[in-house]
Amino acid sequence: MKKTGKIIKVFAPATVANLGCGFDVMGLSVAEPGDAVEVRLNDSGLLKIIKITGDDGKLTLDPQKNTVSVSMINMLKHLNKKIGADIILNKNMPLGSGLGSSAASSVAGVFALNELMGRPFSRKDLVPFAMEGERIACGSAHADNVAPCMLGGIILIRSYDPLEIISLPVPKNLFVVLVHPKVVVLTRDARAVLPKQIPLKTGIAQWANTAALTAGLYESDYSLIGRAVHDHVAEPPRARLLPHFNELKGMALKSGALACSISGSGPSVFALCEGEVIAKKLARAMKSFYTRNNISSQTFYSKVNTKGVQVIS
Amino acid sequence: MKKTGKIIKVFAPATVANLGCGFDVMGLSVAEPGDAVEVRLNDSGLLKIIKITGDDGKLTLDPQKNTVSVSMINMLKHLNKKIGADIILNKNMPLGSGLGSSAASSVAGVFALNELMGRPFSRKDLVPFAMEGERIACGSAHADNVAPCMLGGIILIRSYDPLEIISLPVPKNLFVVLVHPKVVVLTRDARAVLPKQIPLKTGIAQWANTAALTAGLYESDYSLIGRAVHDHVAEPPRARLLPHFNELKGMALKSGALACSISGSGPSVFALCEGEVIAKKLARAMKSFYTRNNISSQTFYSKVNTKGVQVIS
Repeated sequence: MKKTGKIIKVFAPATVANLGCGFDVMGLSVAEPGDAVEVRLNDSGLLKIIKITGDDGKLTLDPQKNTVSVSMINMLKHLNKKIGADIILNKNMPLGSGLGSSAASSVAGVFALNELMGRPFSRKDLVPFAMEGERIACGSAHADNVAPCMLGGIILIRSYDPLEIISLPVPKNLFVVLVHPKVVVLTRDARAVLPKQIPLKTGIAQWANTAALTAGLYESDYSLIGRAVHDHVAEPPRARLLPHFNELKGMALKSGALACSISGSGPSVFALCEGEVIAKKLARAMKSFYTRNNISSQTFYSKVNTKGVQVIS
Repeated sequence: MKKTGKIIKVFAPATVANLGCGFDVMGLSVAEPGDAVEVRLNDSGLLKIIKITGDDGKLTLDPQKNTVSVSMINMLKHLNKKIGADIILNKNMPLGSGLGSSAASSVAGVFALNELMGRPFSRKDLVPFAMEGERIACGSAHADNVAPCMLGGIILIRSYDPLEIISLPVPKNLFVVLVHPKVVVLTRDARAVLPKQIPLKTGIAQWANTAALTAGLYESDYSLIGRAVHDHVAEPPRARLLPHFNELKGMALKSGALACSISGSGPSVFALCEGEVIAKKLARAMKSFYTRNNISSQTFYSKVNTKGVQVIS
């Protein structure tokens, strides 16, 4: 008979990787959507995923293959501990949407376990374990979704060797609008269209923009943020994979968005704006835009989520 | 008979373009060396360079070809005004050294004229006129020396079209050490070794660094500044043109420099450090290093010059 032990429920938010110009090095966290993960300790000595909801049956219950548990296994290996736990994963966000779904599960798993074990690690220390979950999901241990999901706010990853994560300031009135059109863009296709080489001039424009975006965030200069988010590298080739992207972006900018680009590798699109009124209006306009083009979509808007993953009960 | 009119003397400082990772988009101003330029209005209706000192006879007295006057001609054209002036240019800094010598002359010229005319333009407004002087000297109207020379401090040029110049914060205790070895590196050679294309991975590392450098400047995080200045793009190919550069850099970092890279297109080398004690020690060590390698050199060290070009009398 299994004895029931401590139990915890956590919420891990969606994230916008790249943030336009910060291709592969920046990301931010939003209020919703996100994953809710429940972990209940027991004395079985084994991690078991007992239920997954909201995934349309697409995710595996195998703890060696699901990001939620792979990250936990990694953490336990590092601690050289064996622990038994039942895991329930509620995917309250679309899979393969460019919203950091796998990172959210991965972060939720290690964060919950860390809380249950009395916090042997800081949030920053947990990032590498969660990155191992990402490796299972995407083939590489990226941190541009994991780090903002874990730490909240707007994150810059300066280097991977050693891992150096920098929290950038979050302007108070900065809102993020997300729209997830129900079209399929495979991450491997989104990666395949990226150039292996870029013109030096393109690089120069991009590193001017990441520096300017950082300055804009420190200064709460919304207009500068808008100009600086512009991505010269990944957006142009990836835009071709997203039906009507350029038209949507044009509409968003005309409707008062500071900037609009692709969230992660898409198909979700994000827009930044100043203030809730514009954010709400924009979310509606983006949904209507897709509806007019016979594509169903989900929209969300919120301030940047400065907290990251949280215990909810 | 020429009537003698108003007279002014200005000092325009040397500048470090690129600042490592900020290739083509960043630059800073130092306290010395620099150009001293004297402008005396008269009623001749013509600009005349009456004397140049410190240039070993290398610079032209032709006002249509010398950067100091080309920038002034450009400003007068814009104002649709004819003005007569005698110009004396004291080059108190080496030419072709990667220290922004031509930019200093160009800035000094328009700044002096603007002062004499009752400041029809702001410092920022003067930048494009000074950039025209740079076009004569280097073939392209760059702002990465001109802007920090004019405005002082640490400058980011986010874009040229339209021209967008951002002043970044200057940490109080940030010192710049400059060493100018007497070796010749032609700007056209330094340009020729640059790649036309760079690997996407290299670009990613570079735009992570410009963002991180900006954050480091806002946070006065000297250690982060040091890590972030690292240039993946221009320094590696250009280092091959500079005798003993890698050895010198290694020595500087071991001696307490936060960072060390090539100033502009070289041959001058700059190092950043925290505090005057290390700066002074480092300036001596860099001079000794070149002496040991049978290369004579000049060294300078100062805080970042936050004022830029100034009236001195």
